[in-house]
Amino acid sequence: MTENAEVSPKHPRAESIRIRERLTRRVDGGVVSLAGLIAHGRGEAFDYILGERTTPSAAHAIRAAAGALLIAERPVLSVNGNVAALCSRELVELAGVTGAKLEVNLYHRLPGRDSAIEKLLRDEGVKELLGVGEAASAQIEEVNSDRRRVDPRGILIADTVFVPLEDGDRTEALRRMGKTVIAVDLNPLSRTAQLASITIVDNVVRAMPLLISEAKRLKGHGIEELQREVSSFNNARVLSDAMRTMEERLRELSRRGVYIGPRGNE
Amino acid sequence: MTENAEVSPKHPRAESIRIRERLTRRVDGGVVSLAGLIAHGRGEAFDYILGERTTPSAAHAIRAAAGALLIAERPVLSVNGNVAALCSRELVELAGVTGAKLEVNLYHRLPGRDSAIEKLLRDEGVKELLGVGEAASAQIEEVNSDRRRVDPRGILIADTVFVPLEDGDRTEALRRMGKTVIAVDLNPLSRTAQLASITIVDNVVRAMPLLISEAKRLKGHGIEELQREVSSFNNARVLSDAMRTMEERLRELSRRGVYIGPRGNE
Repeated sequence: MTENAEVSPKHPRAESIRIRERLTRRVDGGVVSLAGLIAHGRGEAFDYILGERTTPSAAHAIRAAAGALLIAERPVLSVNGNVAALCSRELVELAGVTGAKLEVNLYHRLPGRDSAIEKLLRDEGVKELLGVGEAASAQIEEVNSDRRRVDPRGILIADTVFVPLEDGDRTEALRRMGKTVIAVDLNPLSRTAQLASITIVDNVVRAMPLLISEAKRLKGHGIEELQREVSSFNNARVLSDAMRTMEERLRELSRRGVYIGPRGNE
Repeated sequence: MTENAEVSPKHPRAESIRIRERLTRRVDGGVVSLAGLIAHGRGEAFDYILGERTTPSAAHAIRAAAGALLIAERPVLSVNGNVAALCSRELVELAGVTGAKLEVNLYHRLPGRDSAIEKLLRDEGVKELLGVGEAASAQIEEVNSDRRRVDPRGILIADTVFVPLEDGDRTEALRRMGKTVIAVDLNPLSRTAQLASITIVDNVVRAMPLLISEAKRLKGHGIEELQREVSSFNNARVLSDAMRTMEERLRELSRRGVYIGPRGNE
């Protein structure tokens, strides 16, 4: 694609535009789907309303998520196109710190897409990667997309699944299977956000480094302490905090009456 | 692209998914840009928070917009990729009813893109189309994208410009040139929304048919009456109404605690 151009670092929305370009650059190779771009746009709008920062409540969810990954017996990090394009390095590092497996799981399993994603993760040094090609041979019931195809060594038998940028169907199905589901979702009203065990309402680009450093910090702690961190976590409260933050910020923005919103560039 | 599939009409987000597919289908031919898909996602999120309906306040802005187009001496409807993919027929009809010219104006003027858009509009029966190829030979100052390239017979000399799904830069430049700018923008906080003379905070797919029927209805009315409609219009009020609607709806949704938000399908 030639539609990307240099962004001036002084541009008020430079960071947001750079993230966009990391995604659009990955469309040609098949890593990012067109629906993935639209989904990213939805996230941008919610992030903007949330204030484009990690709220104290999201930081709390990140702590609980790190604890849950560390105490899990068979944790799996699920990888889709957008996350691979934005956070391959961080995914590989998080898997290393927590002992979780990485599994490619896609809504649209177009030909060659999983191997394009595999290449990104291999470049970041991943050793074992589940869910590629024929390896996604098991099925999850009641999921109406290619998301249902999982690896029998991974998501199928996992006790805890980390599902950044997820769809609601699969979150619901994984929960029904009794798994702990950790979601990253900027929309606190989505089915994913509402149904996950731990919802990190934050931009995945901001959340991943924090999740890694929390996992490193908590790794030295005893299992009882981690369990306390996880069992005291209240997801409903985190979601209602996020909604209150959005409401308050809308009120503040409308009071200020300034135009600092997401910049359109059709 | 093969990622589009049949959507069950019973799906709670069927209409939203169909609109998405109308856009993604137009990427291959070059009508819709990748940045256009992300922009659409942002709109989806704001539309969802607004309640996915035309508010009384948006209906008021649509009435004023119809009046402004009818009293204009040289009205122009600006066409970009997303609008062409979603509303070609309506654009041609609106131009017919109001006597406005149609002009292609693009943020990313990639090779062949304007002629792909031209084909869509020709298929809907457009006779005169400005801004295609070398015809976009004039320049608007202080616009940092291909948006600056305009047709000397169209936007350059227009008194009123209809700019659905716009970027802030150009809206500001057109206003500085003394033109009446009518925008359609789901984000009431955007620069476009804040700087336009009349901002229709509504989904362009819902707004266009209403704008056409208002223009037909008002066409029989006297010029003084139309001028009254336009001059009594208060855009700041319309924007603050939209923000209040968003706040109220967030409060309502968080109270209900239901997961009916935009469905992710990465």
